[in-house]
Amino acid sequence: MQDIRIDLSMAVPFAGKEALAEMGKKAELAFQDLTDPEKEAGFKGWLNPMERGEAYRAMMEKAAAIRSKADAFVLVGVGGSNQAARAVIKALQKDGPEIIYAGNTLSAPALQKVLRRLDAKKEIYINVIAKNFETLEPGSHFRVLRDYLIRRYKREDTAGRIVLTGTFGSRLEEIAKENGYTFLEFPVPVGGRYSVLTPVGLFPMAVAGIDIPALLDGALRMKERLAAPGNPAVEYAALRQCLYQEKGFDIEVLAAFEPQLDYFAKWWVQLFGESEGKQKQGVFPTSVSYSEDLHSLGQYMQEGRRSLTETFLSIEEPDGSVPVPKDPAFGDRFDYLDGMDFLEINRAAESATIRAHYEGGVPCFRIFLPTLDAYSFGQLFYFFMVACAISGKTAGINPFDQEGVEAYKRSMFDMLGK
Amino acid sequence: MQDIRIDLSMAVPFAGKEALAEMGKKAELAFQDLTDPEKEAGFKGWLNPMERGEAYRAMMEKAAAIRSKADAFVLVGVGGSNQAARAVIKALQKDGPEIIYAGNTLSAPALQKVLRRLDAKKEIYINVIAKNFETLEPGSHFRVLRDYLIRRYKREDTAGRIVLTGTFGSRLEEIAKENGYTFLEFPVPVGGRYSVLTPVGLFPMAVAGIDIPALLDGALRMKERLAAPGNPAVEYAALRQCLYQEKGFDIEVLAAFEPQLDYFAKWWVQLFGESEGKQKQGVFPTSVSYSEDLHSLGQYMQEGRRSLTETFLSIEEPDGSVPVPKDPAFGDRFDYLDGMDFLEINRAAESATIRAHYEGGVPCFRIFLPTLDAYSFGQLFYFFMVACAISGKTAGINPFDQEGVEAYKRSMFDMLGK
Repeated sequence: MQDIRIDLSMAVPFAGKEALAEMGKKAELAFQDLTDPEKEAGFKGWLNPMERGEAYRAMMEKAAAIRSKADAFVLVGVGGSNQAARAVIKALQKDGPEIIYAGNTLSAPALQKVLRRLDAKKEIYINVIAKNFETLEPGSHFRVLRDYLIRRYKREDTAGRIVLTGTFGSRLEEIAKENGYTFLEFPVPVGGRYSVLTPVGLFPMAVAGIDIPALLDGALRMKERLAAPGNPAVEYAALRQCLYQEKGFDIEVLAAFEPQLDYFAKWWVQLFGESEGKQKQGVFPTSVSYSEDLHSLGQYMQEGRRSLTETFLSIEEPDGSVPVPKDPAFGDRFDYLDGMDFLEINRAAESATIRAHYEGGVPCFRIFLPTLDAYSFGQLFYFFMVACAISGKTAGINPFDQEGVEAYKRSMFDMLGK
Repeated sequence: MQDIRIDLSMAVPFAGKEALAEMGKKAELAFQDLTDPEKEAGFKGWLNPMERGEAYRAMMEKAAAIRSKADAFVLVGVGGSNQAARAVIKALQKDGPEIIYAGNTLSAPALQKVLRRLDAKKEIYINVIAKNFETLEPGSHFRVLRDYLIRRYKREDTAGRIVLTGTFGSRLEEIAKENGYTFLEFPVPVGGRYSVLTPVGLFPMAVAGIDIPALLDGALRMKERLAAPGNPAVEYAALRQCLYQEKGFDIEVLAAFEPQLDYFAKWWVQLFGESEGKQKQGVFPTSVSYSEDLHSLGQYMQEGRRSLTETFLSIEEPDGSVPVPKDPAFGDRFDYLDGMDFLEINRAAESATIRAHYEGGVPCFRIFLPTLDAYSFGQLFYFFMVACAISGKTAGINPFDQEGVEAYKRSMFDMLGK
């Protein structure tokens, strides 16, 4: 079980030395503030990953039961309620039920597609995740899916197929009790985008066969690291704020040379976008999937507006191997690849890209994952959540609210006659 | 067959009146320059979509033959060589062979996944698309796939399964002749990101059963519209350059409330990013998929840095319909949706979002597609290609080159010993 490694050496040269030292002090204070149990206790439950007690054991048992029986498991949730689990499942799932995502769109064609996929499955289970059970997508899809399950299995056989994840005391908990559904806790002092280490993220991952103890161990290992001197989350947060506030680097691009990380990037974009995009400020978070996007945004990254920073996630020992077969008589002019493995070729593309972007004026943050596994993901999640909270606080905003998402809802609820 | 509609009324108020008039003149000149056959003829072949002559008929026949026999059709290409076809196929394909994408990654696990999917198929055909047959991803994957096909079918049975799309006189054409593969033309005066209306985009779409005549008709209809007074591509280009140069709106977000358009957004990002991201300038292009991303970037769009413009693609008559079933005794507090269709709910979310973002300080461009079909796509492609070329020229850059993508290649080829 190895630590992930955070390397800021290709970003530091872009910051002013004194400005960075100054920002480092602010970020250190923000971290002390964050870890002070007296302050903002109502928003910081996520600093402590789920404990492995009674509720954990019950959750894992239910997950194992579903895993052994289900052909399809529908994760009904949106934003903070599905991004983390989806990120890990898309990257690591090897077998078990097909995980289908619903409650994350209002498109009729997209919902029809989900229902058609379910038609082809025999044993279906669903998990509805909603902290505030007023969100339209999961609420409306729960209606449709409940109706669907009752038509497929009869009412009395549906209760065992439904798991609800919500806050204690919520309407969702009452619904679970009234109908005999399993209920899991979405802790009140944990915002959606910080909920990966609670049943919100862990339960669907467990159904998909992810190694939950390893993921939690990874998070706890990072927690321990961040408590020691030389905290890399403080350094990363200070540097990105320094580059933003002092030098105008106002877009951060999460980049990886492994498409298995595409959905992790979506989690990351929400984490930073929703935490920092307020008061008309904030670094704009976005992502690229290399090498494909070198043929799309590569030109912009190299020579466009010099306001970009890039955060590379590199996997030191990726899974899999495909050697390039030789074909000497064919004459395709790719003989220089003879006998090489795609693992090497991809690594060469990655090194060359980082060097070219750095030399082209892009500060590059690098995070190395020893391997792509649950333990690395646990570290990564915890690292970025703490770094994001510190970064937001250093910028003088509240990284735990999201008032702006209410604006469109008012006129939408109006139109829908709520 | 209805026209798409371009509505700039929610963006115009953010621009200064005089500055916009001034920019409009520049954009008009750029358009005249663009359509002057004497100028830059070597880069503007795309202004004329493929003609329906002999080469077209041969291409359509080959596509029909493959379509009738194939279980899987592998599109081997990256960037301009796969984005447009993938955009349309992902949105519109109803039946026929499964289209599998390769030649667009260097990841070993991703390539292994492709090979595993092929193992489950019986009749496999491939199309390698490469203007410059030096690009690593399609070149190396062609090696692997050729080897795979020969192992599955024997060498003599592979020739009929391989179609190559390249420029006349290229090594790829020689390879086709030497091996008896079908060869299609990638016209020299058409850059990859402008190649949708050539065999590059049209052939894979035809294999997937897309209505190619309707797509070409849509493009030609837009060509005709843009030649008339009140050219919407000139207006759109002038407005986005005005907002960028005069008001600092330096990020443009392509947004749609229909996930079927997710891959179109990728095509669009490449078109603008590669055309305009040079000389340390250019609007940064990115995209969101609503309603899902309202729960991710929605907060930033509403209250983050006010440097964003948003371009909404709206489908006036979407396919599909899912009514919300009633469940009065259940008490889920979503009764206000009783009997509504998701088509309505999604439309309400869209209207509310655009209004909220506009009121929050985001200039909103709107493009209305009567329905999501090949004719609309044809119009959309042609509109954006012309708008992008005008926008780039108005900004004083060359929208047809991409020198910056060479930077990482030099050190990569070095490492790989080329």
